[in-house]
Amino acid sequence: MIKIAADLGGADRSQAELAEGVIKAVEELDELYVYAFGSAGELEPVLGGRERIEIVDSPQVITNSDDPALAFKEKQDSSLIKAMELCRSSGSISGLASCGPTGAIFVSAIRLLGRIARVSPMLAVELKRPDGSPICVVDCGANVECRAEKLLDFAKMGRAYMRAVGVKAPRVSLLSNGAEDSKGNELVRKANALLRESCPDFIGNTEGNNVLTGAADVIVCDGFSGNVLLKTIEGAGKAVIAELRALGLRGEALDKVYKKYDHNTQGGAVLLGTGLPIVKGHGSANSETVCSIIRASYSLAANGLNEKIAEEFKG
Amino acid sequence: MIKIAADLGGADRSQAELAEGVIKAVEELDELYVYAFGSAGELEPVLGGRERIEIVDSPQVITNSDDPALAFKEKQDSSLIKAMELCRSSGSISGLASCGPTGAIFVSAIRLLGRIARVSPMLAVELKRPDGSPICVVDCGANVECRAEKLLDFAKMGRAYMRAVGVKAPRVSLLSNGAEDSKGNELVRKANALLRESCPDFIGNTEGNNVLTGAADVIVCDGFSGNVLLKTIEGAGKAVIAELRALGLRGEALDKVYKKYDHNTQGGAVLLGTGLPIVKGHGSANSETVCSIIRASYSLAANGLNEKIAEEFKG
Repeated sequence: MIKIAADLGGADRSQAELAEGVIKAVEELDELYVYAFGSAGELEPVLGGRERIEIVDSPQVITNSDDPALAFKEKQDSSLIKAMELCRSSGSISGLASCGPTGAIFVSAIRLLGRIARVSPMLAVELKRPDGSPICVVDCGANVECRAEKLLDFAKMGRAYMRAVGVKAPRVSLLSNGAEDSKGNELVRKANALLRESCPDFIGNTEGNNVLTGAADVIVCDGFSGNVLLKTIEGAGKAVIAELRALGLRGEALDKVYKKYDHNTQGGAVLLGTGLPIVKGHGSANSETVCSIIRASYSLAANGLNEKIAEEFKG
Repeated sequence: MIKIAADLGGADRSQAELAEGVIKAVEELDELYVYAFGSAGELEPVLGGRERIEIVDSPQVITNSDDPALAFKEKQDSSLIKAMELCRSSGSISGLASCGPTGAIFVSAIRLLGRIARVSPMLAVELKRPDGSPICVVDCGANVECRAEKLLDFAKMGRAYMRAVGVKAPRVSLLSNGAEDSKGNELVRKANALLRESCPDFIGNTEGNNVLTGAADVIVCDGFSGNVLLKTIEGAGKAVIAELRALGLRGEALDKVYKKYDHNTQGGAVLLGTGLPIVKGHGSANSETVCSIIRASYSLAANGLNEKIAEEFKG
């Protein structure tokens, strides 16, 4: 049995609605056991009495309007912090899925679950190439100010992540404004030299136009650039569909591709570098999102992501 | 008559082929006069004897493999440097269009045409919203390392540019990883404060997903982020079309939108901040590109771009 903690507080929709996603995930995956954190009053009618689902009553929620550090102090009964506490104390939970605010997840994960090898925790986001194969972008927004050494840590975590999703020898690349090693701002030029030296699967720089179609499985960047990259892909994807619709095109293919580029329907980011991988849905998550982030947590745990990260930082 | 210098050297295709674009531009625009710089042997058979076209023989070319500073010293007979020299000495040429390498254009423009108000010259690129209205991104790659004051200069030049393309009160925004003023890396947070203070049309930050559909007419960023932004728009746009084709969609609408996102068929970047605006085509330019960059040079000159930039930096 793989045990996953699911924090259902802090999103825009009701916990009762989000709980439907827990049921769906458990029905899909025979070896999944979920601890569902939220208000018992809301969750009991939906989840009560079901096999492999355990409700943990958490009367408080942490939302986007809470200050992360203050919320950590004052909302110890929140679904997020109770979930982290159980992850820490039980020792048998393999992953956490949450729709809570990113800042609060970071603060509480660092304090309660600790860091791996003193790295800066960061957000990995998985994208799909047009042929459906995965790539991951690290960091997507957690560390807007970086030194080159941090980018090397991101590369290692990204490589472990890609191995956990089934890519045997992930090719690592650095986001830059030109393919040549000499291109980039000071940070990127330093990181390029460091990756050339220390990362055996480093294949050089990747420009924005080659992220989705190039050879790299892991795109390494500081959190500011990564955030610009991801959001720009979303915005451009949706703009193209809008332009095609304005030209009269219709049909399922357009809806399907629009959905792929719409972050509201996408999986979620994964917080890496603390004691457990945490799959994060966005604040506007629905029950489908909840099912998808629990499924992702389960799959990363089943494929030994945390052990693979530990390997990368060993020695 | 508006006189434009066209540098036809340094691109991948033959000068004779590119020269066709000069003819097309002159046929389109009655008030256009072009000085065409390139090898007389190549250009004469195509352009010789035509009205409002003057060939200036330039036996050398500067290519992407030349070191910009060295080329400036050693290739004084190149089409690029001869074109700049004539712009400087004649006093009656209003714009320069070139398919030469960006680095060499910068070096020679700064040395021969000088800077406006000590600003850092930068690259502005015009994008179209899905409804066809223009926005511009400044800087798109010339200054990968910036201070906040530079970003304010970019904002001013971007505003002047948008006024020259017909937007009366351009709204200025800053590319960031969040809409709130507090978001961004150190540079962006400082620039946000500076723009709040000194730029009356500043409307706050814009995230990557809102660049193409948001309210901002001018997107201000450092050259590294701007380059990532632009290339990512291109890459995502082409990826979406590839995915739709893989799903079986066909037709003119797809080809049209693909063409819009394909940098090979787009206008070009404009170098702003030196004595003359320089419209730059890419190295893989064809005759259509040449026509389009000459047309853009003409239009920016006719609409007083340089005077508008001077106004922005006055007093």
